[in-house]
Amino acid sequence: MKYPTGRKKRPIKQNRSNLGMTLESDLDVTNNYYLNNNIAVIHKKPTPIQVVNVNYPARNKAKITEAYYKTPSTTDYNGIYKGKYLDFDAKETSAKTSFPLRNIHEHQVEHLRMVKKHGGISFIIVHWKYHDKYFLLPTQIILKYWDNKKGRKSIPYSDFVSYGYEITFSYHPRLDYLKIIDKVYF
Amino acid sequence: MKYPTGRKKRPIKQNRSNLGMTLESDLDVTNNYYLNNNIAVIHKKPTPIQVVNVNYPARNKAKITEAYYKTPSTTDYNGIYKGKYLDFDAKETSAKTSFPLRNIHEHQVEHLRMVKKHGGISFIIVHWKYHDKYFLLPTQIILKYWDNKKGRKSIPYSDFVSYGYEITFSYHPRLDYLKIIDKVYF
Repeated sequence: MKYPTGRKKRPIKQNRSNLGMTLESDLDVTNNYYLNNNIAVIHKKPTPIQVVNVNYPARNKAKITEAYYKTPSTTDYNGIYKGKYLDFDAKETSAKTSFPLRNIHEHQVEHLRMVKKHGGISFIIVHWKYHDKYFLLPTQIILKYWDNKKGRKSIPYSDFVSYGYEITFSYHPRLDYLKIIDKVYF
Repeated sequence: MKYPTGRKKRPIKQNRSNLGMTLESDLDVTNNYYLNNNIAVIHKKPTPIQVVNVNYPARNKAKITEAYYKTPSTTDYNGIYKGKYLDFDAKETSAKTSFPLRNIHEHQVEHLRMVKKHGGISFIIVHWKYHDKYFLLPTQIILKYWDNKKGRKSIPYSDFVSYGYEITFSYHPRLDYLKIIDKVYF
């Protein structure tokens, strides 16, 4: 597949362009692989929704007719790996040089902090779409920027390269982040 | 508060009748207590909902106009306590002598089994409304009945009394199930 020269600036996801996958579905596939191969039990939490109205057009079939998305009070993913509690959030960014902290809710940062404090493994996975790279970034690096109220409101890409861990995209499993957990935490 | 004699059969929840609380909200209050006192980080997962239609009547305000409840693929509660992964579901029953296994989805039982296998602490909390008692029942007792395909399709109340652990209802925290986890697992 060839694109006109005008599109050359953005790296073309050669092998993935026809899959139409997002970070969320790549992680779902990865977590299913971990589950089916008895490696870890990690699930994405459902999106929190505030239900306002429900109809019952048919027996046993509730139809929600009014509802709203709520701000999540925790991260999206958690589970157990080698007996350890593991907790993370996944984010995508189109940014080039730094990851804006407004992409993470305050509740989520505080949750990651608490998990770390209680002896769990907590981090974020960020897909840098411009660079087409995936990084696992430990909570301590997020907190370094988050807790510095006078400092910048974003984490530089160079910090992901220096203090984060790149996750290589492959097929089976798609985003093998537990390989990094093995190296860093065990 | 006095009820006419006809209602005597059901034990009257003297102190709680005016609270209108359910097991879910009692556990929410308990988990908030654990969180605020830095004891554990345990949250209820959001109810899984399949969104079919969304409208945008106002800027930045998505209104879901058609959605349906989905069968949960895991349990409702998980988190970290003393560095350990903890996972459970909460159920209420009006039954008198046995807890019907149809109250638990197959996915939930398999999830509890997996968690136990990976070194986590997994169990169910059942509120027996008739007896007005709360029990924590370890996964192994559920599996004993679940895996016996020829056997009964319910867990007798007497098993909750013999092999489970009663959680006393109090005010602060309301259902102190971690006290039992301390005794049994640590």
